[in-house]
Amino acid sequence: MTTIDLNCDLGEGFGAWEKGNDPAMIELATSVNIACGFHAGDADIMRTTVELAKARGVSIGAHPGYRDLHGFGRLPVYGLKASEIENLVAYQIGALQAIATAAGHKVTHVKAHGALSNVACENEMTAKAIASAIKAVDPSLVFVVLANSTLVQAGEAANLPMVHEIFADRAYEDDGSLVSRRKPGAVLHDAKQIAERVVRMVQDGAVVSVTGKVIKMRTDTVCIHGDTPGAVDIARGVRQALNDAGIAVAPFRKSS
Amino acid sequence: MTTIDLNCDLGEGFGAWEKGNDPAMIELATSVNIACGFHAGDADIMRTTVELAKARGVSIGAHPGYRDLHGFGRLPVYGLKASEIENLVAYQIGALQAIATAAGHKVTHVKAHGALSNVACENEMTAKAIASAIKAVDPSLVFVVLANSTLVQAGEAANLPMVHEIFADRAYEDDGSLVSRRKPGAVLHDAKQIAERVVRMVQDGAVVSVTGKVIKMRTDTVCIHGDTPGAVDIARGVRQALNDAGIAVAPFRKSS
Amino acid sequence: MTTIDLNCDLGEGFGAWEKGNDPAMIELATSVNIACGFHAGDADIMRTTVELAKARGVSIGAHPGYRDLHGFGRLPVYGLKASEIENLVAYQIGALQAIATAAGHKVTHVKAHGALSNVACENEMTAKAIASAIKAVDPSLVFVVLANSTLVQAGEAANLPMVHEIFADRAYEDDGSLVSRRKPGAVLHDAKQIAERVVRMVQDGAVVSVTGKVIKMRTDTVCIHGDTPGAVDIARGVRQALNDAGIAVAPFRKSS
Amino acid sequence: MTTIDLNCDLGEGFGAWEKGNDPAMIELATSVNIACGFHAGDADIMRTTVELAKARGVSIGAHPGYRDLHGFGRLPVYGLKASEIENLVAYQIGALQAIATAAGHKVTHVKAHGALSNVACENEMTAKAIASAIKAVDPSLVFVVLANSTLVQAGEAANLPMVHEIFADRAYEDDGSLVSRRKPGAVLHDAKQIAERVVRMVQDGAVVSVTGKVIKMRTDTVCIHGDTPGAVDIARGVRQALNDAGIAVAPFRKSS
Repeated sequence: MTTIDLNCDLGEGFGAWEKGNDPAMIELATSVNIACGFHAGDADIMRTTVELAKARGVSIGAHPGYRDLHGFGRLPVYGLKASEIENLVAYQIGALQAIATAAGHKVTHVKAHGALSNVACENEMTAKAIASAIKAVDPSLVFVVLANSTLVQAGEAANLPMVHEIFADRAYEDDGSLVSRRKPGAVLHDAKQIAERVVRMVQDGAVVSVTGKVIKMRTDTVCIHGDTPGAVDIARGVRQALNDAGIAVAPFRKSS
Repeated sequence: MTTIDLNCDLGEGFGAWEKGNDPAMIELATSVNIACGFHAGDADIMRTTVELAKARGVSIGAHPGYRDLHGFGRLPVYGLKASEIENLVAYQIGALQAIATAAGHKVTHVKAHGALSNVACENEMTAKAIASAIKAVDPSLVFVVLANSTLVQAGEAANLPMVHEIFADRAYEDDGSLVSRRKPGAVLHDAKQIAERVVRMVQDGAVVSVTGKVIKMRTDTVCIHGDTPGAVDIARGVRQALNDAGIAVAPFRKSS
Repeated sequence: MTTIDLNCDLGEGFGAWEKGNDPAMIELATSVNIACGFHAGDADIMRTTVELAKARGVSIGAHPGYRDLHGFGRLPVYGLKASEIENLVAYQIGALQAIATAAGHKVTHVKAHGALSNVACENEMTAKAIASAIKAVDPSLVFVVLANSTLVQAGEAANLPMVHEIFADRAYEDDGSLVSRRKPGAVLHDAKQIAERVVRMVQDGAVVSVTGKVIKMRTDTVCIHGDTPGAVDIARGVRQALNDAGIAVAPFRKSS
Repeated sequence: MTTIDLNCDLGEGFGAWEKGNDPAMIELATSVNIACGFHAGDADIMRTTVELAKARGVSIGAHPGYRDLHGFGRLPVYGLKASEIENLVAYQIGALQAIATAAGHKVTHVKAHGALSNVACENEMTAKAIASAIKAVDPSLVFVVLANSTLVQAGEAANLPMVHEIFADRAYEDDGSLVSRRKPGAVLHDAKQIAERVVRMVQDGAVVSVTGKVIKMRTDTVCIHGDTPGAVDIARGVRQALNDAGIAVAPFRKSS
């Protein structure tokens, strides 16, 4: 039986500010990526999110981002050295590990957030620095990589266990990259269309590009957003459609 | 042979700003407390400081403080809940643990910084929350406690290994507490006087109060400051005087 | 005809995080207090809020708080010197003045936020430092003071124009101070009760304490909250009840 | 008699951290650019710096930077909208204006800091946004622009009074741009050479490029650094050499 993981970014508030609908999304995701205090999240929100995940049997990962609370980690940062990116990522993983340990849960994966991920998807130095940080902290941590991106090579070079991720609600170019958010149609909003698309992606191990091209792509986990309008309904639709298609939704397993 | 540890707070810069003279102090201390990014320090400085300590064979500890970069963690914070203090401390310990792991070193102790320590020395809830965080993250971590303070009971209640600390350059009241920095004579500046005082404290297992009263006090480690004027000379004097008195200066061992 | 001002705290998001319902509240308030970036708010949100107020003909004030984004300025800070509080407040007023000038509007009042206000209401040094900052930046700025608090004397001593504020949804002690939020019944939630209470406060120039005591209190403006559950409905109810009672709701005028 | 202004960046500490040697540099500069809290500086340091400048009769300017304390505003930020840059700059100018007013001094110019300046020197949108912010806050503020950069056109388009700046210790390319700091020889360190160079620049109204080409360049102010090794000695040398050459060192006057 085919299985697929649904991952979602959680714990993205800060202090008195909230974001997204974590209690609803945790019911739908099988793995969650937790903000670690640099672009969002704080020690208390991390703890609450870890406990939520533990109570639901959902696996957790660190979701490190640039040091940019104001910009929510969405502004690309150029000019950092590899060692600075490594330290930034290691710090954030460790912070979540300690919070998880205190809560009786365990960090099992790492996925880069926002601009850190975007830059890494095309910049080898950044991708390698992230992989290097993960390896240095704990080489058994699973590296969640955007399928078809520079992150894949960086993870392979570091010999990290990896899971490949596709996006439920993003359009793809013919070369397998994501359509830039600046272009129309980059983000899909129709819950039914998204659900059907995800089922096909998982069944076929491929995405269909904007021109209709079928691109083979390893697919271990599907990213579902938690902070967009209609997020919960879209995620519910995806989960239901997967069930209906006989695809088991379950936490990813490490690649061997 | 009597042995004593000399501990010093290091890694207290932030970004482009420096503080203290870490390369000189690391030569004189046998254990160092590393700022973890909340009142000072950042992932890069933490890494550099861990590497410095590793190269010198000096043991390292986390030095968690309040979230207060602007005030350097010196402003007392009231109104935090026990769980918030626990999460704050756990986060900072974990961040340093990951950086240390990446650098091939290991965090072996925790000492609270500045106002967090001051508040904890007299506020049982805060002291217990710090101890509780350490225990939850790793119960084998040594809790460095101000001798004669509320921290001692908190550490005992949590069954943590502890080392008791006295200050080289601070005057003591008759009840064994530190003379408030607001009173004249609270901080000693004469290098020779400080050195003689430390030798006596270690030899006698006692401090002499401002009125001349001898107060028995367990003494496992002596705090030497790294960021005051003359800090390096004072620390050198203390170390020399201890050597001259036949007291070995060496990293503390866990109490059993 | 009796007139009363309704003031509301706005612009309390930060970066990607939102808080409250500013577009709805701006329709109901006649003066707004804008967060200035220390406990909430940023240059963009300040600009948007100023433009919203200008479009509605609503007067604006600076709402300075402690440097505490994580705690939303709600943690009391002790240990700041008078000069530090003065500089903190002056900085925030100036920041809003420039944003207002750029948007073609004008800052006409200042009201301290959260813990800064709470501390000032009982600590003379803090109250005087706030008044002193306002006077030093622009002595024609109106100082919005909690009726019956230490802020009143501080404003008088500085010879600042003042408006006295009462709270729509807070219970009062017999001595005219607010019932602590830690006590049950401190905050009222029933929209109808709140509306009736405000009308009486304005008509009688007095509040009724928890024991039924009538306490005379100058009342120039009523604070309506924008970020509590039901905030918009409560504010609508208050405004409607005032209209029904023949009380004009209009921006406050400076006391002479 | 020829006159020239010497400008220097001051107030670049933060909280307990210091940077540079402000008391020495204020003796040598005739105008100072004060950090406004985003990349460095805080309300207290701003106040102290303003008072220092006032006591010395030195004119003051706002030195706005990106929101980046950790990176000291040296990391380029791409992805901000023009309105965001405008608000960022307006906020910082206003903050300093209020602090200056409280101290009885007056902000008379604005100079962008670090990466904000570097990006603006080649990115028209950024340059225009800075000019636009200055104009919107106070069109009589002098815009200090790097001679020969995009900032000049932006200032002209906004009809702002401007002074053109050259660098005492930086090498120039044949096209009049600064040699990138990544190239060898970009920064000059020899005090005597720097002093002679500045005298020639001012006398000739031209810089000599790395290949020996003479490039005419309007020169109203010379930037002297305060935080490099030997900074004070270099600045003293420059000032002395200008005096010896019969060039008066005095605050710039607005261009009409």
